[in-house]
Amino acid sequence: MRVATVSNQGDAADDRNSYRFASSDNTLGRLVIDVCGISIGGPTLAVIGGPCGVESKEQVFAVARYITESGVGLFRAGAFKPRTNPYSFQGLGQEGIELLALVKREFNLGIVTEATDLESFPGVEKVADVVQIGARNMQNFALLRRAGISEKPILLKRGQGATLEEWLLAAEYILSEGNARVILCERGIRTWSNHARNTFDVSVIPAVKALSHLPVIADPSHAVGRKDLVIPCALAGVAAGADGILVETHCQPSSALSDGQQALLPNEFSMLVNQAFKIKNSLQLVDTNNGLCF
Amino acid sequence: MRVATVSNQGDAADDRNSYRFASSDNTLGRLVIDVCGISIGGPTLAVIGGPCGVESKEQVFAVARYITESGVGLFRAGAFKPRTNPYSFQGLGQEGIELLALVKREFNLGIVTEATDLESFPGVEKVADVVQIGARNMQNFALLRRAGISEKPILLKRGQGATLEEWLLAAEYILSEGNARVILCERGIRTWSNHARNTFDVSVIPAVKALSHLPVIADPSHAVGRKDLVIPCALAGVAAGADGILVETHCQPSSALSDGQQALLPNEFSMLVNQAFKIKNSLQLVDTNNGLCF
Amino acid sequence: MRVATVSNQGDAADDRNSYRFASSDNTLGRLVIDVCGISIGGPTLAVIGGPCGVESKEQVFAVARYITESGVGLFRAGAFKPRTNPYSFQGLGQEGIELLALVKREFNLGIVTEATDLESFPGVEKVADVVQIGARNMQNFALLRRAGISEKPILLKRGQGATLEEWLLAAEYILSEGNARVILCERGIRTWSNHARNTFDVSVIPAVKALSHLPVIADPSHAVGRKDLVIPCALAGVAAGADGILVETHCQPSSALSDGQQALLPNEFSMLVNQAFKIKNSLQLVDTNNGLCF
Amino acid sequence: MRVATVSNQGDAADDRNSYRFASSDNTLGRLVIDVCGISIGGPTLAVIGGPCGVESKEQVFAVARYITESGVGLFRAGAFKPRTNPYSFQGLGQEGIELLALVKREFNLGIVTEATDLESFPGVEKVADVVQIGARNMQNFALLRRAGISEKPILLKRGQGATLEEWLLAAEYILSEGNARVILCERGIRTWSNHARNTFDVSVIPAVKALSHLPVIADPSHAVGRKDLVIPCALAGVAAGADGILVETHCQPSSALSDGQQALLPNEFSMLVNQAFKIKNSLQLVDTNNGLCF
Repeated sequence: MRVATVSNQGDAADDRNSYRFASSDNTLGRLVIDVCGISIGGPTLAVIGGPCGVESKEQVFAVARYITESGVGLFRAGAFKPRTNPYSFQGLGQEGIELLALVKREFNLGIVTEATDLESFPGVEKVADVVQIGARNMQNFALLRRAGISEKPILLKRGQGATLEEWLLAAEYILSEGNARVILCERGIRTWSNHARNTFDVSVIPAVKALSHLPVIADPSHAVGRKDLVIPCALAGVAAGADGILVETHCQPSSALSDGQQALLPNEFSMLVNQAFKIKNSLQLVDTNNGLCF
Repeated sequence: MRVATVSNQGDAADDRNSYRFASSDNTLGRLVIDVCGISIGGPTLAVIGGPCGVESKEQVFAVARYITESGVGLFRAGAFKPRTNPYSFQGLGQEGIELLALVKREFNLGIVTEATDLESFPGVEKVADVVQIGARNMQNFALLRRAGISEKPILLKRGQGATLEEWLLAAEYILSEGNARVILCERGIRTWSNHARNTFDVSVIPAVKALSHLPVIADPSHAVGRKDLVIPCALAGVAAGADGILVETHCQPSSALSDGQQALLPNEFSMLVNQAFKIKNSLQLVDTNNGLCF
Repeated sequence: MRVATVSNQGDAADDRNSYRFASSDNTLGRLVIDVCGISIGGPTLAVIGGPCGVESKEQVFAVARYITESGVGLFRAGAFKPRTNPYSFQGLGQEGIELLALVKREFNLGIVTEATDLESFPGVEKVADVVQIGARNMQNFALLRRAGISEKPILLKRGQGATLEEWLLAAEYILSEGNARVILCERGIRTWSNHARNTFDVSVIPAVKALSHLPVIADPSHAVGRKDLVIPCALAGVAAGADGILVETHCQPSSALSDGQQALLPNEFSMLVNQAFKIKNSLQLVDTNNGLCF
Repeated sequence: MRVATVSNQGDAADDRNSYRFASSDNTLGRLVIDVCGISIGGPTLAVIGGPCGVESKEQVFAVARYITESGVGLFRAGAFKPRTNPYSFQGLGQEGIELLALVKREFNLGIVTEATDLESFPGVEKVADVVQIGARNMQNFALLRRAGISEKPILLKRGQGATLEEWLLAAEYILSEGNARVILCERGIRTWSNHARNTFDVSVIPAVKALSHLPVIADPSHAVGRKDLVIPCALAGVAAGADGILVETHCQPSSALSDGQQALLPNEFSMLVNQAFKIKNSLQLVDTNNGLCF
């Protein structure tokens, strides 16, 4: 019988030992990354909140205020926005970074923000506590190598068309340059299932944890693109073992310059945070390796 | 500018009012289905457990015993098995149905089992408390119409290539014949993501609930096909709002005649049930329609 | 290193020798099926044309007339229509079969038409020269077994979510019952690519031919669902080695009761047929097993 | 009835007029790009051949010799190779570019080669007659903008997870910077269909041509990753209306440093070229806008 299937992974499959730094085979226990006093990868859930993009000082301060009141210590907003459409709003750029520096100083929040290219990286890196590499850049190898020599932790989003193995190999680009602090982030994959923008691939969370010691968080907002599905999917991510969640929230979603339809209102955000902590606390370690029939 | 995209739904899209019975527009509140005293669709989680297939009296009794001890009241096992390969084990057939009747009598468990075609339907229907229509048969319209005149509730699995709309239209085939008691079951969709057998599409659970009053349950076992991912995905389904879970469990998975690699051991099953109830209980209704910026 | 990928084929993979009758390993040369004097699987291209559904005597006679004038000898139209939506037009049923019998007698055309379930099978079989099993029924195993005891050739459409291996195993259900005359038909697969209804998976045509001696034809009409893409895709199928094409055509597509937007007009159909024969004739066997560097 | 589906295109859909330069609405007729005397986009088929990567002078000269003898005027080989795995062979880099300059001088071939990042772009641009942007970089916007100020034509591969609209918007990034000479290249998309590495999306070729005046070519080698499927898919691409094909060929595929299993041997390449020209010549323009029922 001849073979009916082939690998769809190209050179990813050249060497099964290829993600040596991303693999938990070579580490003792899971990685915990401290960001401004918040642990990512430890027993407590890390929550990152914020609007899609930095729009104004008023906007980021308003959001920073209520997420702080919800007990959340990490703020995410994009100053540099990668956009599919060249004519879409591309973010405030360096001016946005300076507004994030103000947020950091005023609210004592850890800042997560994206570097979209080599040019923006140094400015982002100066202010950010975590530098995000976006889904479209997951295989932008020059950018990954640059992230690898940064002193800041890197939040690496899974590409919407990337397998788990390709994602770990992208992390390997960063890790092999010397930066050991990589946080993986599932943000939905592209499938034919059309009730949501992307398909939130919740099973990849425990699957990553079976292979790698790196922390993994869930971004339901970009995954589903519909506000009514964001809360259930965030909770699903926590229940599946995510070390954290990244959720978009905005005072006035309807006037947001991007992605307003997926942003939670302040009270929704606060309820989600409460609920997510409850689920995280209810989880006990379930050992799937022992068990006898009685 | 001309159109770059087309609907991929064929005649599904002919009429947006086409799932009139499956739509919650035409009902008052959610549907709760009572199966042997267990509510499916109400505030409590419904757990259905059992092996993939009926293999022997010893096997089904052993499993029935420990799932009962875990507080679970619904037992599922297949007597008629639809198999991709014509030479694979096809189930014990009517003999298996009779073993399920013994389980029902001995353990007072509600029985969920599949009818694979018109021929097997009457025998299945006689014993089953819920008749399952499998994923491959989701668009077997003759079978759906037959289910529509049954007096038993129907568990309708989503086809692995079916959109939410097609799934609701399949339910509509049953409902429009007069059988109002349909339970929807998400069991994973086929995508290119290759760390699990299928992609567990967790966001479809709240998406179904936004459109339909029918109860929806999650089957993580068939979705992921890997035991270590079953528990996290089951919990994810509960956190996302599923009304129940359907989980495979077996005393000796390694000797199971089908799907052994995804079956939980007795103690794993029991831990999962505990955990799942904790999460269900921690969930509060989150209203996404109100919220002001303070 | 632990494994990052799993098979997504379930029991299909139980046994690599499982499609023993569908495999070319056990045959001498390719299968050629004669249908009313038209060879399917031989050196000449087989063209099957017709409207989506039988609507009236006038309609089928008008189409039969011009496809005959185009030199086409096989007529396809559906009397029994499987529909996603229970309230859509389901075909004329037995009355449609009788109209097809008239077409056959009047125009001396071979008739290809679908049997959607066990009930309709005998009536369809009596008139049809080829019985079609539709994409939604590719894993309706009771129907496949029934097709396996028919004396008519079976045209087996690939399910829109089926792998090549599952398709061959579906053929195996028919072949293993004794009916050796199966024609495979690629009709598009469901993916996220959204410029067409489905993705016409042209590479599956040579991939099937590498594994099986069964003839394989292309159905671009259902694959793409857009008339302007039907002709290029039909020609692509021929260039890729298809033994035939199945193309929808209608005198007045805008008034068709189903799928009008993909039906070719008479003159378009005739041009396509000419073009397709030219390409088929220009193809030479290319042997990929020999070749030296000079 | 509430909505069951959402756009999966994010900001791509912000503005349907967003690919104003890539759209044929704003041009008179199709774009023809001259590369070293070879027209891409005109009535003649453009063939680009070569090995996956530049490995040595002997290797590129050997391939250049036989593709020239086959009547092919464009040579493609990668000096800078984007690799999923950080430890895979990454190409000879600038040394490879210099070998390509030798090929150009010695054989008078037009050179197509990839620039993987901003750093490599100027060196590539100096020698290349067409600069390739690879599939992984289709949304590397900094690189696209750099390509937009180049004086060389750009071959823009479709991302393996990109819709037609996203692909045209990526082209728009280049076009809007002033470089009007963009060649689109379909190279397969990622789906669950597992008989080939990727699914060669042949219908996107006529779909692009319905929207844009830009030339579009087919790369079956990367699409399918299996030598026996490359020739049928190349011919399918031509039959579907591609303006050209890009095919990998190598003297000793088994010893190639990358992608050997998809490279054609010299005589296979030569046969393919003959066959492809025959099909191109047999194609007549088929007008789908006129047609009456007789």
